[in-house]
Amino acid sequence: MHTLTKQPTSFLDAITGPAELKHMSVEDLQKLAGEIRQEIVNNLSRTGGHLSSNLGVVEITLALHRVFNTPTDQILWDVGHQAYVHKMLTGRRHKFDTLRQFKGLSGYVTPFESEHDAFVAGHSSTSVSLAVGMAIARDHLKQDHKVIAVIGDGGLTGGMALEAINHLGHIQKNVLIVLNDNEMSISENTGGLALYMKRIKETFFYRDIKEKLDSIEGSLDKVQLTAGIWDMILEVKKQAKERFDTPGIVFEKLGINYSGPIDGHDVSAVVRAMEAVKDKSAPQIVHLITCKGKGYQPAEDDSIKYHGVPAFSLEPQLREKVDASPSNPKSTTYSDVFTQALIDVAKEEPNLVAITPATAEGSGLVKFGKAYPERFFDVAICEQHAVTMAAGMAKAGLKPVVSIYSTFLQRAMDQVIHDVAILSLPVVFGVDRGGLVEDGETHQGVFDIAFLRSVPNFTVLAPKDAAELRDMVYTAVKESNGPVAIRFPRDKAIGASADGTEYSGTPASQPRFIEPTEWQIVAPGARSKTVKKPAVILAFGAMVDTAQQALDMIETDQIPMLVNARSAKPLDVSMLNDLLRDGHDTFITIEEGCLSGGFGAAILEWMSTEGQEISDVTPRVLPIAIPDQFVEHGARAILLDLNGLSKEKLAQRIKKIITK
Amino acid sequence: MHTLTKQPTSFLDAITGPAELKHMSVEDLQKLAGEIRQEIVNNLSRTGGHLSSNLGVVEITLALHRVFNTPTDQILWDVGHQAYVHKMLTGRRHKFDTLRQFKGLSGYVTPFESEHDAFVAGHSSTSVSLAVGMAIARDHLKQDHKVIAVIGDGGLTGGMALEAINHLGHIQKNVLIVLNDNEMSISENTGGLALYMKRIKETFFYRDIKEKLDSIEGSLDKVQLTAGIWDMILEVKKQAKERFDTPGIVFEKLGINYSGPIDGHDVSAVVRAMEAVKDKSAPQIVHLITCKGKGYQPAEDDSIKYHGVPAFSLEPQLREKVDASPSNPKSTTYSDVFTQALIDVAKEEPNLVAITPATAEGSGLVKFGKAYPERFFDVAICEQHAVTMAAGMAKAGLKPVVSIYSTFLQRAMDQVIHDVAILSLPVVFGVDRGGLVEDGETHQGVFDIAFLRSVPNFTVLAPKDAAELRDMVYTAVKESNGPVAIRFPRDKAIGASADGTEYSGTPASQPRFIEPTEWQIVAPGARSKTVKKPAVILAFGAMVDTAQQALDMIETDQIPMLVNARSAKPLDVSMLNDLLRDGHDTFITIEEGCLSGGFGAAILEWMSTEGQEISDVTPRVLPIAIPDQFVEHGARAILLDLNGLSKEKLAQRIKKIITK
Repeated sequence: MHTLTKQPTSFLDAITGPAELKHMSVEDLQKLAGEIRQEIVNNLSRTGGHLSSNLGVVEITLALHRVFNTPTDQILWDVGHQAYVHKMLTGRRHKFDTLRQFKGLSGYVTPFESEHDAFVAGHSSTSVSLAVGMAIARDHLKQDHKVIAVIGDGGLTGGMALEAINHLGHIQKNVLIVLNDNEMSISENTGGLALYMKRIKETFFYRDIKEKLDSIEGSLDKVQLTAGIWDMILEVKKQAKERFDTPGIVFEKLGINYSGPIDGHDVSAVVRAMEAVKDKSAPQIVHLITCKGKGYQPAEDDSIKYHGVPAFSLEPQLREKVDASPSNPKSTTYSDVFTQALIDVAKEEPNLVAITPATAEGSGLVKFGKAYPERFFDVAICEQHAVTMAAGMAKAGLKPVVSIYSTFLQRAMDQVIHDVAILSLPVVFGVDRGGLVEDGETHQGVFDIAFLRSVPNFTVLAPKDAAELRDMVYTAVKESNGPVAIRFPRDKAIGASADGTEYSGTPASQPRFIEPTEWQIVAPGARSKTVKKPAVILAFGAMVDTAQQALDMIETDQIPMLVNARSAKPLDVSMLNDLLRDGHDTFITIEEGCLSGGFGAAILEWMSTEGQEISDVTPRVLPIAIPDQFVEHGARAILLDLNGLSKEKLAQRIKKIITK
Repeated sequence: MHTLTKQPTSFLDAITGPAELKHMSVEDLQKLAGEIRQEIVNNLSRTGGHLSSNLGVVEITLALHRVFNTPTDQILWDVGHQAYVHKMLTGRRHKFDTLRQFKGLSGYVTPFESEHDAFVAGHSSTSVSLAVGMAIARDHLKQDHKVIAVIGDGGLTGGMALEAINHLGHIQKNVLIVLNDNEMSISENTGGLALYMKRIKETFFYRDIKEKLDSIEGSLDKVQLTAGIWDMILEVKKQAKERFDTPGIVFEKLGINYSGPIDGHDVSAVVRAMEAVKDKSAPQIVHLITCKGKGYQPAEDDSIKYHGVPAFSLEPQLREKVDASPSNPKSTTYSDVFTQALIDVAKEEPNLVAITPATAEGSGLVKFGKAYPERFFDVAICEQHAVTMAAGMAKAGLKPVVSIYSTFLQRAMDQVIHDVAILSLPVVFGVDRGGLVEDGETHQGVFDIAFLRSVPNFTVLAPKDAAELRDMVYTAVKESNGPVAIRFPRDKAIGASADGTEYSGTPASQPRFIEPTEWQIVAPGARSKTVKKPAVILAFGAMVDTAQQALDMIETDQIPMLVNARSAKPLDVSMLNDLLRDGHDTFITIEEGCLSGGFGAAILEWMSTEGQEISDVTPRVLPIAIPDQFVEHGARAILLDLNGLSKEKLAQRIKKIITK
């Protein structure tokens, strides 16, 4: 597996669709699993992608397509990033060289790509709810296919999965839940349920009790008992078996029939387990134990590192070189800067705690957890709990910082409003992946500015570079007395050195207080023959840098003013007042977020209310933002350009506006 | 209890704070409970309020304040509408005549009102997360008070409560969960967990097994056994007791120590149960069985009807009269109209299904459930599951309609984006309580327009009256091929007759197709000496009627045009184009939603982008909406006025703008 040598893939080559799996022997299926694994490793070494999770579900996927019939039967892949094998088996094998590339194969499931993908997925914990809905629809429409939700133990900690199981247990619809249990979500898994499932596996639950009962029975046989007592013992044994000798008693008690645990890498056992429940009409859960990264030793050893990988070399000795190659330079990301800032301010703030919902690796917080294990809370996939827990902490005197991806924060909007904002509690949100990402529609962090801006008491910030992010974190933790969101994209941090020790030429670990809600004039601009006052560009976050680059490309006699509008809420009303009084009458806003309700809308709203009192002329405000549509997957640079936010597109737009 | 006669309240009169409870005998506490109950019924007969839930927690509240010490110990009341007794015991007894009135006593808990209220609440299922956060804070700060979450069995179905229990089971913090189990949330409770808890109560779980084991043991005693076998039997019994003879095995397996079930109306038993776990350091759940409406027969008989009540007469024979009195006329609400429209269109659409997360009564959907029980899904308190289940249904061919309150939809914003909007599935959302409500900060439905408008593929509608709501529902169900939200306030439906049979003089049950995204000119307006083209008022939803009334109050020579802008998304671009080309240059938007990102922002955004291409003049757009602050509780009319949305305030604003 470690070599670059291409192995024969005779079984895989023969597969044109899932139908072929029906005729294969179980032994051949197991061989096919080996070929698939090899192909995944080879493919991902070139393109990058979700490695560990896909290596973990090879046999499960084969068994699903062996026992069930897509697209008639509906398989709902939770999260959807573990469906590569499913894609290979459903006609998409030869598109893997375009994985996660613009117009190429999606890294997630989506019906836009194949009728075998029953639904779109990208976020966790949705599959059981979808399955319940589809099962109700099936029965209502008098159809008779199967509905199968494939969910990981990590996804099971998400509140909505528990809501769905609770409902399913009540309505008793024919749904099969395939629980792929590898004891981790993206990070290591957390929670009473995880510990419980661990105990199931360790003890095979109550086996000891059963053995003892058998042993007693064996002994009793030798003595004389009345028939009545004997019946009673048998009855106890029966009831004990029914009620106690069930590894999945929690699921059983909630009304879901449980089978397992079963070795999820034994095709034969998995097929048997699925065949056994295939024709049952009550809800079933089949509990499969798998190993993330199975079959590729480096990924088995460190499945977290290999959760999502960039292209890599298969030769271990080459891997170090790949890491440092010019095409994949080690760079300092905003996530790195955020984490380092937290670590630094935590030294001064003993009551600072950091919370993440299962994104410790992606957000870089693992490093914080190592530095301050007692002050680090990875609560598993449960954004709602994460935010409200932080609210409780803040009310009780801690300084909680929640690190969360922009789209995952969507899961906790009510908690942001109801539990954090009403009491105006000092919770700091590090909103990571705020902006466009390569993953596609489900992960585009474009709504957070609009959402958070509409919530009273919130401060909504975005830094223009690494140093400003550090200073915003420092200032927010030290000084804020209400909720603060600091959003930043998934990208290299502007101004940070590759080793992360310097930001804009000064030592990284020297935070300073700033006034984050005061905007700064980056370039004053200059008047031209035709306009007395230049246009004002109000750029939010990392767009300050892109706007600067765009301005460098424009040749006109008017040079617009460039403002680092680092706070979308509150606005720097004082600066806006001054600009209006000075006679500026054209404003261009630039943000990496949705147009609707975003930073540009904030300027428009202000200009049309308070701004009206200052200036007799109604100034022109021209918002540049992400249009009202879902953004597909592909390289970030392509997506930015597609949405008018590359320096080239910005230059065109700005030039058109100022020369109009 | 049924009479108006005031009974003596000698025990209650002696209570100035929770400290006094410590010295009372349990018998006197039980008498005090009776007095409290009487006072609640008397108070609520005058003011209205949450009756059943508060009658259910009298003894629990007394026991909590007997055993624990607020405000040092932190009691977190889930939802918070069942804290009247708590309020009476913590210095707020004599404010109950102002309950839920403007500047009066809040109907929920809030630290703004008392230090004994540990947190704000209004939505369900938050208390365990808050308790976990506060317990972590307590331990970090080396304090030693208790943290107690009081949660109902209804709240326990909410995903975030399950997330929190899962996390608590893992981190094993010292938190006491008091489970107030009355087998209902607002509506009757749903879910595997509810059924499970019901079985706990029915069987006291495994008691039969234990009895049989005892019986076997008794018999065995008479025969000769070796010491080894005897030890083994004892060991089995011990393990059986530990592991199986536990009513709360699900909680135990998740790592929460369980005691119960206990009669929640027996003060003595409740006090004993709390004393028993008070000094434990591991997480505990005490399971108390209560009766909603306890002690007031009409409420015991129909606790749903008495969940939240308007002022009522204590004399049963007078109640009918009260219902029909002029001060409380029977009126047809938007919720009624919505439900009737669903029932009517369901006749023609066999695949229409209705879903509600535990708000069947409040939203009027009970009537739908009676008409079409097989097509009605009250999924309990789980908004996330409700929305994603609907997405699954729509994908599989049904026509799901989700009836949900505006602020509860905040719980499912990610599901709206990720599961409904990306695939542009035809799910219809009836967004009830869209606008200001008397309940206060936690329930103000002011964010939905801004939130939903930013989601691609959504249509966001609001009807101007009953007939338009009916027609929107009809058209959306019959014709829409993408997600549609129809939002309406908690109010009498404009144009509906008191008995609900007529809307604007025509039969209620005669829906017709409309083009909901086409706006309508309600009044053309007229030019004046100074302006060639009158100002245009774009009013959204029920604000059309208020704006009309406002215009009737204004005397100027210019009469503004009034437009029923019934679609906030998409905008009626065709009409906007025409208005601009016609030379209209002043636009006033009016909406009952937050200014930030709302309908007004939509007009501003459009005018500054596409609108720029049409007109050389930059038109003035003046948005009238709810300012950026949380709105307190009080009568809807007062809150509307306070936020500038009464006809009087609108008239002032409009006049100022058009005469400027």
